[in-house]
Amino acid sequence: MTGTPIPFVKGHGTGNDFVILTDLADRLALSPSRVAALCDRRFGVGGDGVLVVRRTAGVPEVADLAGVAPLFMDYRNADGSLAQMCGNGARVFVAHLVAEGLAESGEFHVATRGGARRVRVEPGADIRIDMGCAQFLPDEDILVRPVDAPDRVAATTALGVLMPNPHAVTWVSDLSEAGSLRERPSVTPARTYPQDVNVEFVQVLGRDHIAMRVFERGVGETLSCGTGACAAAVATLRRAGAVAAGQRVRVDVPGGTVHVVWRAGGDVELHGPAQFVARGTIEAAWWDAHA
Amino acid sequence: MTGTPIPFVKGHGTGNDFVILTDLADRLALSPSRVAALCDRRFGVGGDGVLVVRRTAGVPEVADLAGVAPLFMDYRNADGSLAQMCGNGARVFVAHLVAEGLAESGEFHVATRGGARRVRVEPGADIRIDMGCAQFLPDEDILVRPVDAPDRVAATTALGVLMPNPHAVTWVSDLSEAGSLRERPSVTPARTYPQDVNVEFVQVLGRDHIAMRVFERGVGETLSCGTGACAAAVATLRRAGAVAAGQRVRVDVPGGTVHVVWRAGGDVELHGPAQFVARGTIEAAWWDAHA
Repeated sequence: MTGTPIPFVKGHGTGNDFVILTDLADRLALSPSRVAALCDRRFGVGGDGVLVVRRTAGVPEVADLAGVAPLFMDYRNADGSLAQMCGNGARVFVAHLVAEGLAESGEFHVATRGGARRVRVEPGADIRIDMGCAQFLPDEDILVRPVDAPDRVAATTALGVLMPNPHAVTWVSDLSEAGSLRERPSVTPARTYPQDVNVEFVQVLGRDHIAMRVFERGVGETLSCGTGACAAAVATLRRAGAVAAGQRVRVDVPGGTVHVVWRAGGDVELHGPAQFVARGTIEAAWWDAHA
Repeated sequence: MTGTPIPFVKGHGTGNDFVILTDLADRLALSPSRVAALCDRRFGVGGDGVLVVRRTAGVPEVADLAGVAPLFMDYRNADGSLAQMCGNGARVFVAHLVAEGLAESGEFHVATRGGARRVRVEPGADIRIDMGCAQFLPDEDILVRPVDAPDRVAATTALGVLMPNPHAVTWVSDLSEAGSLRERPSVTPARTYPQDVNVEFVQVLGRDHIAMRVFERGVGETLSCGTGACAAAVATLRRAGAVAAGQRVRVDVPGGTVHVVWRAGGDVELHGPAQFVARGTIEAAWWDAHA
């Protein structure tokens, strides 16, 4: 593939932005260093991650899913590492499939490293992604303490949720109580989260309306986090004793607004927008220089 | 122009990155808010600024230059404000002109808000930009003190240079002595720089080789600054008493390497690379939504 410009699309979901590549013939050699170079915001295209459209049947780790989900969302983090799932990325990914004629609008499945996911894309409506089951950690006194919040705020109690990545959801009367979030809040006891944790601060704005700030593990504060929005919504419903099938919560994140629906049976759906910014080709010389 | 995708190119010069637009028919309505949206790194294409190719004759503020420089580099900062000149941007701009067949390789002039600039583009060679005259401020005890440098570093003496934007160039035995540069170093006396100042920390690596870190006014530490590299090079030559026509200095910046040549007569040339990353079109829906 040397000497060939590489088609790409740039898009975002509530401020979580992605470089989208289509590789149906399995020709792109996407090394971790090339992914990191693509996501570099000054020397590359720039993004929080890369979404690659691949044929499920051709990728051994997900080939079992090919019957239900012929296309695979091969998601890579900005540092080049692999990831199972990304809720905001999935919306951009499936909108891209429909825009490119790779899938028909309506309901279909896409393969991810976290399994096959049911999605729904309708013209003019929020995109819906099945995010799987929320699992609550056993009740215990999980405490969250922002590193530099105003003095008057002591530690707050959190609910632990696996989506399946780990979250600690806590409630504040105002989002400013989370402080600068330049560093990860302390979360105790440490044994609850052996592999680190994402921390959500939630301000309840109404019966089915919350605002949220999130500190993502390994990243820092972000404009939006799909699994974090789901964890925050279901934890807030459980805390209020307001759990009922089909309950819907509006979640305002710094990058926009998403909605979370808790389906009968426990499945959680993330509804939200996907926006395309630009499309074109990556320079062949750039691509070849960043193998 | 609603409903029309807008062609763009993304490129960088030593890590200073730009969105390049070509607008020979004066059709793009480039409001400050649209520029800021374009430069937004998550909701837009992302860049340190926007470079627009326009016909000099059609722009009243530079129309006088149309005889010598038929094309105008309409440069905008990432916040949407106007700027006179950008050395790293100029290299990317003129490389784009040659790549698009809008100028022939070799020597030519481009119009900027800072006047007509002589440039040279040759295949496989560094691009050369005439940056104008360096002007030294009167000798006085300008002192620079990093906000959080290691304790052992006291204030250092600086030379003041106008390029024509204001610089304070100071020398350290190691670039780490500049500290984190999260905040602007203090520069005294304040009256020397009524409109704020760019601060360069220089480590001398050889007779004609320096390394530099820069704090740009209104921005913070950056990967590269064209006028800063020029100011650092000529101030270092003057300090060493090594001024001679045609003197050339290699300047290592965090984003790469440029060279500065001090021509007989006082003109300073900046030589360095320009790299294209991607090209394509901005989505019509995005463009129309960000008027």
